[in-house]
Amino acid sequence: MKNEELYALLRRRGVLWPSAEIYGGTQGLYDYGPLGFALKRRVEEAWAAWFVGLSHDYHLIEPAEILPEAVVRASGHLENFTDPEVTCESCHSVFRAETVLEKVRPEGVDGLTPAQIGEILSSNHVKCPTCASLALSVPRPFNLMFGLDWGVTGKERAYLRPETAQGSYLSFSRMWDVGRRALPLGIAVIGKAYRNEIAPRQVLFRMRAFTQAELQIFFDPAGFSVPFDRVRDELLPVLRVDRRERGEEAPELVRAGDLVASGGLPEFYVYHLVHTVRFFRDVLGYPADRIRLFEKSDKERAFYNRIQFDVEVRLESLSGYKELGAVHYRGDYDLSRHSQGSGKDLSVHPTGREPLLPHVLELTFGVDRNIWGLSDLHLGTEGERTLWKLPSYLAPVAVGVFPLIAKEHAPYALALADELAALGIPAQYDAGSSIGKRYARMDEAGTPFCLTVDGETLAEGPTKDTVTLRFRDTRTQERVARTDLAARILPALRPPRPART
Amino acid sequence: MKNEELYALLRRRGVLWPSAEIYGGTQGLYDYGPLGFALKRRVEEAWAAWFVGLSHDYHLIEPAEILPEAVVRASGHLENFTDPEVTCESCHSVFRAETVLEKVRPEGVDGLTPAQIGEILSSNHVKCPTCASLALSVPRPFNLMFGLDWGVTGKERAYLRPETAQGSYLSFSRMWDVGRRALPLGIAVIGKAYRNEIAPRQVLFRMRAFTQAELQIFFDPAGFSVPFDRVRDELLPVLRVDRRERGEEAPELVRAGDLVASGGLPEFYVYHLVHTVRFFRDVLGYPADRIRLFEKSDKERAFYNRIQFDVEVRLESLSGYKELGAVHYRGDYDLSRHSQGSGKDLSVHPTGREPLLPHVLELTFGVDRNIWGLSDLHLGTEGERTLWKLPSYLAPVAVGVFPLIAKEHAPYALALADELAALGIPAQYDAGSSIGKRYARMDEAGTPFCLTVDGETLAEGPTKDTVTLRFRDTRTQERVARTDLAARILPALRPPRPART
Repeated sequence: MKNEELYALLRRRGVLWPSAEIYGGTQGLYDYGPLGFALKRRVEEAWAAWFVGLSHDYHLIEPAEILPEAVVRASGHLENFTDPEVTCESCHSVFRAETVLEKVRPEGVDGLTPAQIGEILSSNHVKCPTCASLALSVPRPFNLMFGLDWGVTGKERAYLRPETAQGSYLSFSRMWDVGRRALPLGIAVIGKAYRNEIAPRQVLFRMRAFTQAELQIFFDPAGFSVPFDRVRDELLPVLRVDRRERGEEAPELVRAGDLVASGGLPEFYVYHLVHTVRFFRDVLGYPADRIRLFEKSDKERAFYNRIQFDVEVRLESLSGYKELGAVHYRGDYDLSRHSQGSGKDLSVHPTGREPLLPHVLELTFGVDRNIWGLSDLHLGTEGERTLWKLPSYLAPVAVGVFPLIAKEHAPYALALADELAALGIPAQYDAGSSIGKRYARMDEAGTPFCLTVDGETLAEGPTKDTVTLRFRDTRTQERVARTDLAARILPALRPPRPART
Repeated sequence: MKNEELYALLRRRGVLWPSAEIYGGTQGLYDYGPLGFALKRRVEEAWAAWFVGLSHDYHLIEPAEILPEAVVRASGHLENFTDPEVTCESCHSVFRAETVLEKVRPEGVDGLTPAQIGEILSSNHVKCPTCASLALSVPRPFNLMFGLDWGVTGKERAYLRPETAQGSYLSFSRMWDVGRRALPLGIAVIGKAYRNEIAPRQVLFRMRAFTQAELQIFFDPAGFSVPFDRVRDELLPVLRVDRRERGEEAPELVRAGDLVASGGLPEFYVYHLVHTVRFFRDVLGYPADRIRLFEKSDKERAFYNRIQFDVEVRLESLSGYKELGAVHYRGDYDLSRHSQGSGKDLSVHPTGREPLLPHVLELTFGVDRNIWGLSDLHLGTEGERTLWKLPSYLAPVAVGVFPLIAKEHAPYALALADELAALGIPAQYDAGSSIGKRYARMDEAGTPFCLTVDGETLAEGPTKDTVTLRFRDTRTQERVARTDLAARILPALRPPRPART
């Protein structure tokens, strides 16, 4: 589906809509409705089961979303977390430099100075997109953080966090003390981050408040041991810098072992690339041939990242590859900066070792962007039907429960829905209109199972307390005893977990 | 335990700690560690199972945390969401008027004008708590919302939401359209709210960023039908305004039916009071004799609340009753204000009825405050042991899994922990120090079950694949087959749900 068509369907079904819609919407903010919120929660749970599940020493925490000024000064965000913006000196419109340069410089402006960007603007005679005059200013850095007056004096400043990762760095020494005092130690956060984007767009792709799921793995720089043999033969769809420089856009499949042996990447890094691809392919169910591991060059990546591959997925609604996650080897940048900034030495002293400052491997995942990805790739038409082929464990509603005839079968169906809900199975009762229309609504919502209570369910005899179980994808039906339902349905609702390291 | 003692224990165990602790902490902000985050998530899930579970037409959504200025102007927060603050004109310290008046006016300052508060200050010769001079200013209203510069022009303003409820009101017409178009319709939100508190204190009790769980029930003012007979004989611990005015502080037990028949309260309101008390008593496990339904008088409650009872619980650590939730009958104030503010008529047209503007019953619950309450009431010492007697379905870790001898039994124990985790049972492996110390750590974390893998588990014969299951509260142990474990443990992990209306 096209972007606008997909967004209209998601709005109509109450998956998401513009925030403060009755006031005309708030640019860059969206509200999740019942289906969208449930889907989002299940995606978060699947992410946690997979990535936090990588080790018994990885843990989820919930740090505050607000950072005092000293923290963002130390992290470098106060100085560097900027996006170049240009102003039209004729009509006063404001644009991201990257956006106005999209046609003449599709590769973006990462790594260019404001003066260089200004030079490209003028040598290409780029006009103001609003008034078409040749009056675009030289770019100036615009800080994307939202600042707050903090406290009552009007003198303190704090900031909405621009990334969830900072909370993990700030918590590292406390986590070391309350845990096993051993590396690797993983700290995961799922939560909101905030950026005052100059030009929010593409619905969930450039929002001003968005949800990240991030795992920071703190490890001993002298060695991060992983069971690499288990993944050595896995093929990864990589697009490395050398091939990008030759103008290629399609990934090539490379053995994990070769990325280490001849590709110059460390084992621990490739091991986590493999698990990241498995998550997108095997857990979220994205088609393997749409996934690309896009290597960022020295100039493109943040200077503190030693290695960075973005996980990109080709989406029809947005006409190309979009970044949905990334794997960053951040070195000791963050702990080193916060050691300096706070005056507290964040190095640790593992048993039998000299004190050391851990390095960080960051696995990052855009929750909202993947809600969009799961809509783009799994929601579509099949013959007459609109069908959301979500993996069962991601479906907002696991089971639709219907009375065949509302008057006669409603009490049984309601009690059945409650019974399933009490077992932790998200069940939704629906008695509106015909059975066919109820199936259609559930298909559109991605519900993998539907149960219908009918005369046989209530009659005496061999079919008593049996219901019709109908499967979304195949539309096949079978008769199942009420007492067998949970055992049939529950296993399909458990997200996959990795083998532990 | 005393406040400081309890807070020290929670910090030491990594339940929570001051945010940005290595920078000296951020006043009014706390981070949840692994145990605290898991507990918080389970409390939220138990709240949702109970309150959203009240009807098939109640739904959880996730609206944005940021509100544009037009919204808070319409809601009245821009004008009225203030707390009187006083400044010492000698030392320039700033205080909440309520705080400096605590001793001379323990009932608070709700409903007083700044001039009246100033009068009380001067007639009582109240001194500055910092420098002891008699130079406290007349109070001025201090707006508690955090404002943001929104967008790139520097001219737009937006605000961090001061309560989650606004998102439900803004979403009401969309929810009406995507739902059954019938009343009552419930919209629930669990999420952060932000207030620039003049004097954050008491750890989780007055924070600048905190989590609320709120259910807004939109109903037909001509009638909100509830199955009142089911609750008529329930005794509720109420402290009504008339008894408060006579100086009484203890609640009296009153039949729900009498609160309607002679107490002047509507059935729908008392019905929800009953379910609220049941939640605190039966789901969170607070002792019944510590709960009090505290009625707010005309002057104390917000002017748009027609009826308000706070749910208060007596906590040892804070030396008295503390508000942990509330039931507000807000009338049509919110939809009416947003109809005016947005220019969009928010009245609805149920089948066979004239258009009407729904009224709102708000059930509100402070998640962080209840984390504190669950610590205060359930965490303590019993003989030699420190024990957190959380209900099993709230425990951060459901099962501790130990190898008796790490070297021999670790692989089996690790695989067992993974097997339980894959079934959705929060399991934590622990091989550190002695079995006794592992039990002690799990007792302190509130873990209801521990499993020990030993020689018998691995030996051939009748005890093969059996483990020792040990219960937290009784310390009793029994031998259980691995294949029976999930069936023994899972039912204890499901939070109670109400009978559906």
